Amino acid sequence: MKKSILIVGQSNMAGRGFINQVPEITDERIYMWRNTRWQMMNEPINFDRHVAGIGPSASFAAAWLLDHPEDEIAIIPCAEGGSTISEWQSDQPLFTNAITQTKVALENTELVAILWHQGESDSHSDLYTNYEKKLIDVLESFRSQLNLPNIPIVIGTLSDELGKAGFGMSCTQSEKINDIIEKVGNSIPYVGLASAEGLSLNPDGIHLDSVSQRVFGIRYYQAYTKLMNYSKSLASEAAILEDIYSKMPTQAEKMNKLNTQFALGKISIDTYMESYQSINQGE
Amino acid sequence: MKKSILIVGQSNMAGRGFINQVPEITDERIYMWRNTRWQMMNEPINFDRHVAGIGPSASFAAAWLLDHPEDEIAIIPCAEGGSTISEWQSDQPLFTNAITQTKVALENTELVAILWHQGESDSHSDLYTNYEKKLIDVLESFRSQLNLPNIPIVIGTLSDELGKAGFGMSCTQSEKINDIIEKVGNSIPYVGLASAEGLSLNPDGIHLDSVSQRVFGIRYYQAYTKLMNYSKSLASEAAILEDIYSKMPTQAEKMNKLNTQFALGKISIDTYMESYQSINQGE
Repeated sequence: MKKSILIVGQSNMAGRGFINQVPEITDERIYMWRNTRWQMMNEPINFDRHVAGIGPSASFAAAWLLDHPEDEIAIIPCAEGGSTISEWQSDQPLFTNAITQTKVALENTELVAILWHQGESDSHSDLYTNYEKKLIDVLESFRSQLNLPNIPIVIGTLSDELGKAGFGMSCTQSEKINDIIEKVGNSIPYVGLASAEGLSLNPDGIHLDSVSQRVFGIRYYQAYTKLMNYSKSLASEAAILEDIYSKMPTQAEKMNKLNTQFALGKISIDTYMESYQSINQGE
Repeated sequence: MKKSILIVGQSNMAGRGFINQVPEITDERIYMWRNTRWQMMNEPINFDRHVAGIGPSASFAAAWLLDHPEDEIAIIPCAEGGSTISEWQSDQPLFTNAITQTKVALENTELVAILWHQGESDSHSDLYTNYEKKLIDVLESFRSQLNLPNIPIVIGTLSDELGKAGFGMSCTQSEKINDIIEKVGNSIPYVGLASAEGLSLNPDGIHLDSVSQRVFGIRYYQAYTKLMNYSKSLASEAAILEDIYSKMPTQAEKMNKLNTQFALGKISIDTYMESYQSINQGE
């Protein structure tokens, strides 16, 4: 059975990295959930906004496949830009929708992890005073409502660069939120912590850029492997990404790329047919 | 209360028209449903695929607003590329998902129409022999499960150009499917018919191009007004589109466009801030 991961939180889990600034991740063993169905993953995965872009889940999934080459992994995208921790409490529509989508997805997949990133929208107005309880409530509610009491959850810290420029200026208390995320990430069983330390932002001062998102996905995966007590030593972030990027594309992946170019009107039907035949003949 | 429309069917309802080949439709009174929330509409509305593009619903909504300038209209996108009529029967996940999404959306909107376009995936292998019953079942199931027995539904015919080139070559029996769509569209109470006659396709030979999709949305709206017995005479398709395109953008619409450009990395933060201030000062 396919494995799956649920991705939840706000925009930096959905992804706002610019699409063309990093190498593509295309892998016919990575799927994404749309309209109650699985399709081969193509970024943006979590289309909560028309400006959605690169998030951490593609490189997480690709890193996971390096350790599980015979498996398939499917991403259930339920993150919502700008959402607050209060909007993720278990009686709220965002939470209910994530549970509903995941339960349908679990009819033919097995959930192996939940990836969570949220907090920018709570980094002001002393909202941190209630944040720890609310965060724990959300994580525990995912486990209880999915009836998976020990499902690994990886949560990530907020960027150190918040509060300095652009839209990030509103995040005046992100350090206090980060203290709580670190505490929760280090204290609850089967909850792991991915650090955003040193990651860089888009010019808007709030969204992780694509290069950072690729790295962040690897950090989420490394935190996951720690939770799972994998014995093998982990390569560096850069080496793992290099492994991912250097994978030779399969016939299905070449076809996916060709179909995308044609469907977007970037190549003519003649070029399409020629390339189609070359790919089909295994060239 | 906001009004809403549900859009269902396959890829030509979702939309595959190339985004940059037609003028934008931006209107702060048009919303779209994402993650159980309303956001201002930006195409692509129905993101069933990463190659989603222009469909008929934006021009439908904009035409609707010409007649209801004080209202707001919200689009619930549930169309799925490549889906067959069998996959839309009321016990199937696509149908169930559309009902679930719509019921949540109806907590704060009032459904005024369902727009349906489907049939390419049934235009072969004698699938037309069961198509009429299955189509009627789907339409009646939407009404019964939403508990809206007389909700206006507009269905559209398939392109005359199918069966001639590219991916459309597989649609060898689209005329037979069209006969059924026309019959159903002319015989069931409160079901209207939008004709695809004369509309043109992308080079793939199966997807309506953007120019045609804008026109198709107007035809869907004209069929809707007939169902509603609006007494006013309707302008031509071209005149209605001209009205839509010539609307002066509001401050919120200008800001939406500016935010999009910045979020996609197309303008610098300095340009963003300058334009932001100009828009804010009503320039």
